[in-house]
Amino acid sequence: MHTLTVGLADRSYPIHIGHGLLARPELFLPHLPHGKVAVVTNTTVGPLYLERLKATLEQSGIGTIAVVLPDGEQHKNWETLNTIFDALLQNRCDRRTPILALGGGVIGDLAGFAAATYMRGVPFIQVPTTLLAQVDSSVGGKTGINHPLGKNMVGAFWQPLAVITDTATLDTLPDRELSAGIAEVVKYGLIRDADFFAWSERHATELLGRRPEALQEAISRSCRNKAEVVEADERETGERALLNLGHTFGHAIENALGYGSWLHGEAVAAGTVLAAGLSSAMGLITEADVERIVRVYRLARLPVAAPDLGADRYLELMGLDKKVQGGRLRLILLRRIGEAFVCGDAPEALLKGVLSHPAHCPS
Amino acid sequence: MHTLTVGLADRSYPIHIGHGLLARPELFLPHLPHGKVAVVTNTTVGPLYLERLKATLEQSGIGTIAVVLPDGEQHKNWETLNTIFDALLQNRCDRRTPILALGGGVIGDLAGFAAATYMRGVPFIQVPTTLLAQVDSSVGGKTGINHPLGKNMVGAFWQPLAVITDTATLDTLPDRELSAGIAEVVKYGLIRDADFFAWSERHATELLGRRPEALQEAISRSCRNKAEVVEADERETGERALLNLGHTFGHAIENALGYGSWLHGEAVAAGTVLAAGLSSAMGLITEADVERIVRVYRLARLPVAAPDLGADRYLELMGLDKKVQGGRLRLILLRRIGEAFVCGDAPEALLKGVLSHPAHCPS
Repeated sequence: MHTLTVGLADRSYPIHIGHGLLARPELFLPHLPHGKVAVVTNTTVGPLYLERLKATLEQSGIGTIAVVLPDGEQHKNWETLNTIFDALLQNRCDRRTPILALGGGVIGDLAGFAAATYMRGVPFIQVPTTLLAQVDSSVGGKTGINHPLGKNMVGAFWQPLAVITDTATLDTLPDRELSAGIAEVVKYGLIRDADFFAWSERHATELLGRRPEALQEAISRSCRNKAEVVEADERETGERALLNLGHTFGHAIENALGYGSWLHGEAVAAGTVLAAGLSSAMGLITEADVERIVRVYRLARLPVAAPDLGADRYLELMGLDKKVQGGRLRLILLRRIGEAFVCGDAPEALLKGVLSHPAHCPS
Repeated sequence: MHTLTVGLADRSYPIHIGHGLLARPELFLPHLPHGKVAVVTNTTVGPLYLERLKATLEQSGIGTIAVVLPDGEQHKNWETLNTIFDALLQNRCDRRTPILALGGGVIGDLAGFAAATYMRGVPFIQVPTTLLAQVDSSVGGKTGINHPLGKNMVGAFWQPLAVITDTATLDTLPDRELSAGIAEVVKYGLIRDADFFAWSERHATELLGRRPEALQEAISRSCRNKAEVVEADERETGERALLNLGHTFGHAIENALGYGSWLHGEAVAAGTVLAAGLSSAMGLITEADVERIVRVYRLARLPVAAPDLGADRYLELMGLDKKVQGGRLRLILLRRIGEAFVCGDAPEALLKGVLSHPAHCPS
């Protein structure tokens, strides 16, 4: 087992990463001093892992309240959130009852936002079961739900007490979701860790083959990068925005196609190819760099061609993105592989050019 | 104009209290650096003060987006909150666009919770227009909405950048709401400031007569007390709970009768009489103290007799209150006038006795 720490003064917390951690009560008990926990999961993950977790907790005298939600990004909304509140109130959970998220990014975001707002905030524990959640969304405290007019438009920063990542849960992850998680692994290399990008190029096939050592290393190095960024900029007033590489384009794709049609990681991959294409058109990175990026996504079986929505529709969708400040579009672009920056003045003609031919990428 | 400060490190903020402050742009401008603000108000306060505020801001080049909500506690729910999100998104408000609450406690709670959660948090300014909001709810960062199963069950702590209290707005406050605000003024004296309680006894009639000097002093002394409590315990892990004197009983009353039937301050007054009655039954305060409390409420034209719901119904309603910890009821009781404490072991027989005869109070 690896343990990292996210250092945020009195809100610091450990990330435990290892195989079979769901069976280790000593990782959970320090955060459950009151004998009771509300476990939020979904209809896919629940049948696979809920009983295992409950058994571990119950053998230590911890009672569990299970809240099983429907699966899918399209349920990341107020109605689903309210079913969590209903269950918490009906079971008389109070301010000291922790909420534990057992599932992927959607469950973490929903359960985390419930924890941030139930009785103005209760303790929260992340137990991510998808690669995407393990390398990205479970760390850093972003929680929230979607609004019909935009993704993640309503939410809060709410740090967990601990992230407990059992890599054994990846055994049952569908191939497509494994690939989507690799997109976020690649992202860390692109924005701030060229060595890790090169590592991901060499190990993409092993990751896809679920080699345990490769997965463990990918998760640990990703979490280390994420923790450093969050420690420097918890509330995304600066550097943390770089983690959104490919996300402004990606959110536009998800929004246009309807949440849940493309997986988040898929949209981020295709969105990153657009960001890389724009960076190249602006003379920042080379065509060869773009080709490396496209190649690693292809190795990971991720889409590299964004849908052709027309430049105007893209711009409209991106205008509602919350990365817009003072009415001006801010994009995360690449200065080189391993170095991203916030660009507030990308030439509109170049942006439109890239958006007009979203499927045009190097072969 | 009086200015107090709530000292919360990097989240400290001023409270300005004075007559005619809505006409003073220099109080607003430091918090509106980006030329745009979303003003949340309601159908009662909007027609009275929105144009005045807009004129002040527009003469300084600040554009306003007005969000006018229906008036009343029964609208403090998700549906109303969502109309704020809709307006913010339709007007392309981003993370830097402040939300300003122009209204009473319900508007402050709704607008504040919108500010806490829109794009995971945007700047917030309180401009309270009721006495209750001016002396209590606008200070300290509590925000939230009601849930069908309980009041304020969903919310967040989100401190404003400033509280700007124009006492001229009290000119149009209905008598009943003025009285409800006085209930919270009396509360500070009861829980931690015996001199201020004695002051409120001497000045209750002047407050009811809207004497400007009396109102200004009541607001300033109340805010000073509130600020000290919040500074010591922002997230209500200890002393801040004392501010809930009368609230556990009061919430039960509001919940039983339907939110909005009794005003919050009215329920708190009647609830405080129950808390005082229990404190007296437990031998903590004297019958004479209870009589003083009843007398000051009567001077302020507040109800002193809680509705007769039956002890069992009261206990049921109180069991869902968020002041319950680990399944045990915690009540705020009085050791003497000017000193409240959290009581976790009030004898059930005495509690039931008080709840069985809620209208039985000294004449």
